[in-house]
Amino acid sequence: MAFSPLVDELVESLRCLPGVGQKTAQRMAFHLLERGRSGGTRLAAALNHAMDGVRRCDSCQNFSDTEICQICEKPERRNGTLCVVESPSDLLAIEQAGDYKGSYFVLMGHLSPIDGVGPEEIGIERLLDRVRREGVTELILATNPTVEGEATAHYIADRLDGQNILITRLAHGIPVGGELGYVDGFTLTHAFRGRKPLSE
Amino acid sequence: MAFSPLVDELVESLRCLPGVGQKTAQRMAFHLLERGRSGGTRLAAALNHAMDGVRRCDSCQNFSDTEICQICEKPERRNGTLCVVESPSDLLAIEQAGDYKGSYFVLMGHLSPIDGVGPEEIGIERLLDRVRREGVTELILATNPTVEGEATAHYIADRLDGQNILITRLAHGIPVGGELGYVDGFTLTHAFRGRKPLSE
Ligand SMILES: [Zn+2]
Ligand SMILES: [Zn+2]
Repeated sequence: MAFSPLVDELVESLRCLPGVGQKTAQRMAFHLLERGRSGGTRLAAALNHAMDGVRRCDSCQNFSDTEICQICEKPERRNGTLCVVESPSDLLAIEQAGDYKGSYFVLMGHLSPIDGVGPEEIGIERLLDRVRREGVTELILATNPTVEGEATAHYIADRLDGQNILITRLAHGIPVGGELGYVDGFTLTHAFRGRKPLSE
Repeated sequence: MAFSPLVDELVESLRCLPGVGQKTAQRMAFHLLERGRSGGTRLAAALNHAMDGVRRCDSCQNFSDTEICQICEKPERRNGTLCVVESPSDLLAIEQAGDYKGSYFVLMGHLSPIDGVGPEEIGIERLLDRVRREGVTELILATNPTVEGEATAHYIADRLDGQNILITRLAHGIPVGGELGYVDGFTLTHAFRGRKPLSE
């Protein structure tokens, strides 16, 4: 940048954030220096606290500040229903929807044999242990509706074959408030196949 | 977020960055925690270094790690031409264009009487001192082509009235590579009025 190595270092470091290129990083750095120094110092502290302090819950693999996370600690959430997601952000989206009251297991992504990511790497063995130990009655496989997510769901279902557990997937269909004209063909096909009587 | 106060603190702190709302802050926090912890720690250090260490150059008011910045320190840039800009990002854009070889003065924004921002607040008195002391022969008023930027430029020009200094503004016109159909009317008018013989 030719005028301040410290500004250069800040711009370069901001680029570790997803979606932040050179121009955006410059704009962020200048904003913090001109109008947000206290925010910048607070962000530095929050980064240090989180990078050092956030771990994976021993029970569900979600982010947690403690060995067992705040969701797993609540006994009322161990109601026999366990929802499997690919990432903490999926769990967050479900929690923010607010309707689901069971417990979770957060996979470390999805199976990807081509990248050497097998069942052990994403925690499927731990999931299966937990399903057996806790007497889970319904396992909701809420992995993403992608090729890898579907493959991961089928792998888990296969491993639990013959055990008396209801295994479910989330319904596909038209998003609430969505316009038919903007919905892709696969989703429309699923929505037609899953159609229900109006009285329901 | 209901599962980690440390993640909450990080998401909240990331929102001090310009253009970063709740969803983007969540995505950034999860990205750092899942795949970029070393980047997060490096960013924390860079923020602390910059927030503590970056000051304003005593000569040009640009960001600097030292009392006098790296541009002002170069004797060859004191060539009698001084370019006045509203912010460090404007200076950076000119430096990156690479053609200008004179020195700079970075105003702390522009005059805004309605917000109580007068000549003293943005450093105009320091600018005038410097112009007199250094024997500036051309003063390029590169404030923004906005109402406030124009007013600031005219105020500075008025204050230097009667002194033997060439005062200039940057040319308006069609951006290089721009399409006429996308250029606004004011710019087109300026481009017509400023038209030049093809041989130039
Ligand atoms: Zn947990
Ligand atoms: Zn300087």
